[in-house]
Amino acid sequence: MAHEDSGWERSANEKQRVALITSGGTTVPLEKNTVRFIDNFSAGTRGSASAEYFLEAGYSVIFLHRSKSLEPYARHLVGRNVFGMLEVLPEHVSVNAKNEVELRKLTQKYQLYRCNLLMVSFNTLSDYLWLLQATAQEMHILGSMALLYLSAAVSDFYIPASQMPCHKIQSSGGPLSLSLQLVPKMLAPLVTIWAPNAFIVSFKLETNEKLLEAKSKESLEKYHHHVVIGNVLDTRKIHVIMIDPVNLQPEEIRLSSKDLENGVEIESKIVDNLKNRHDQFYANHKTG
Amino acid sequence: MAHEDSGWERSANEKQRVALITSGGTTVPLEKNTVRFIDNFSAGTRGSASAEYFLEAGYSVIFLHRSKSLEPYARHLVGRNVFGMLEVLPEHVSVNAKNEVELRKLTQKYQLYRCNLLMVSFNTLSDYLWLLQATAQEMHILGSMALLYLSAAVSDFYIPASQMPCHKIQSSGGPLSLSLQLVPKMLAPLVTIWAPNAFIVSFKLETNEKLLEAKSKESLEKYHHHVVIGNVLDTRKIHVIMIDPVNLQPEEIRLSSKDLENGVEIESKIVDNLKNRHDQFYANHKTG
Repeated sequence: MAHEDSGWERSANEKQRVALITSGGTTVPLEKNTVRFIDNFSAGTRGSASAEYFLEAGYSVIFLHRSKSLEPYARHLVGRNVFGMLEVLPEHVSVNAKNEVELRKLTQKYQLYRCNLLMVSFNTLSDYLWLLQATAQEMHILGSMALLYLSAAVSDFYIPASQMPCHKIQSSGGPLSLSLQLVPKMLAPLVTIWAPNAFIVSFKLETNEKLLEAKSKESLEKYHHHVVIGNVLDTRKIHVIMIDPVNLQPEEIRLSSKDLENGVEIESKIVDNLKNRHDQFYANHKTG
Repeated sequence: MAHEDSGWERSANEKQRVALITSGGTTVPLEKNTVRFIDNFSAGTRGSASAEYFLEAGYSVIFLHRSKSLEPYARHLVGRNVFGMLEVLPEHVSVNAKNEVELRKLTQKYQLYRCNLLMVSFNTLSDYLWLLQATAQEMHILGSMALLYLSAAVSDFYIPASQMPCHKIQSSGGPLSLSLQLVPKMLAPLVTIWAPNAFIVSFKLETNEKLLEAKSKESLEKYHHHVVIGNVLDTRKIHVIMIDPVNLQPEEIRLSSKDLENGVEIESKIVDNLKNRHDQFYANHKTG
């Protein structure tokens, strides 16, 4: 599997840690010539912000993301028109005074870390699953230096290709009935077959806080990976719980009002926490 | 309805033509606390490109668009990292030599037309429908100077609020059955009640070319508006047909291989054609 002069091999030799971050939602087509699909689009805030903090913590990052979802660094400009930040002068086109400090800092960071960042994009559930498998398998050579951070919002349901119409469903046909199948959970083969030595972190998103802890533990007990980060849709930017199989008591991460004032992002604390856990994991496994 | 010193009134007095452009797809939530939804996302290429050409043709533009879909001018930077186009110098942050010509031209255009461009965004089908109705009603004062260009890809099916679960659908419940209702067609009230004097252009997208002409005519005969632009998913960037109620023979617009070489966009030809039709329409209706 190992290619003599591959980047994987080089990272392995140099003891370079690599984080595979999945981000954004996946689509499930309703038609083969797809006009409509079921989506659980996620903006990709968690994944794209975390990617920046993993880079700053010294990781190389593979950013496996839904196309059009937020990207590291570029996310800071989303919803803002770049052409309103520039001024046209006879000799050059420059960032205007109002935006200079911010864009200087972001450009410097991007140019510093871009060589450690590999961008890979997907749209459909099926593209995501194949890319995840292939990447995890290639990362095998990194052993316990590999970290998988599965923050993508993956569809739970899909329509098998054999049951999909070829052309656009006509609305003249009246009300529409769809029958959706469960997507097989990929954490099982990921943990046991594709990346058995990697440090694996998954997410559990709920809308009902009461289910959160039980659902997170259930996932950990079922797949035997290393950390589940539980979060509730409405509060996910200020509060998460982290659960591991050794200490089943959830560890809480919560932004204080001072953090919020200072523009601290919860992903900086999540990545900090995970880096310490990964240090420990690596220390325990490097002889194995 | 008219506010004495509103922008609408001013546009009406100054005989300023206004184009309402709808763009992007709409979402249909599957849960009230929405994690999943059905989408017919459209990148918004047609709408965002057309907006630029309407602005250049002298129209003021209201750009009613799906949030995150392509926007006029900004669309040229999508998928490209702005931080890779900048260089940090001690005295300023500038666009690098490789990108200067292009960004100079786009920045100048944006800064020239931004005052004639109003951006309004939506996500769900229901937000879209309310915004469309309100805007069309306010445009009533413009009479035949108003043009409606309905290029958004609106959902055909939805789940009524009364049948929607409150929380995230649990995948542990096994396969999922959904029953979707038809969305009422808004073209009927738009043409007859909300904007009876406006010049109204709608789109018909099919995946099967054989259905295109018949479907486009059917729409025109049903709603009695002014132009239907028919297009097929695979060829929509190089070929459309335009059908009006007077001459039911479709007029074809097709990019030549020379056009393609020169980077001509089909939207420039569509807008050109529509401007002439709108001139004619306005000449016939201004006394009415």
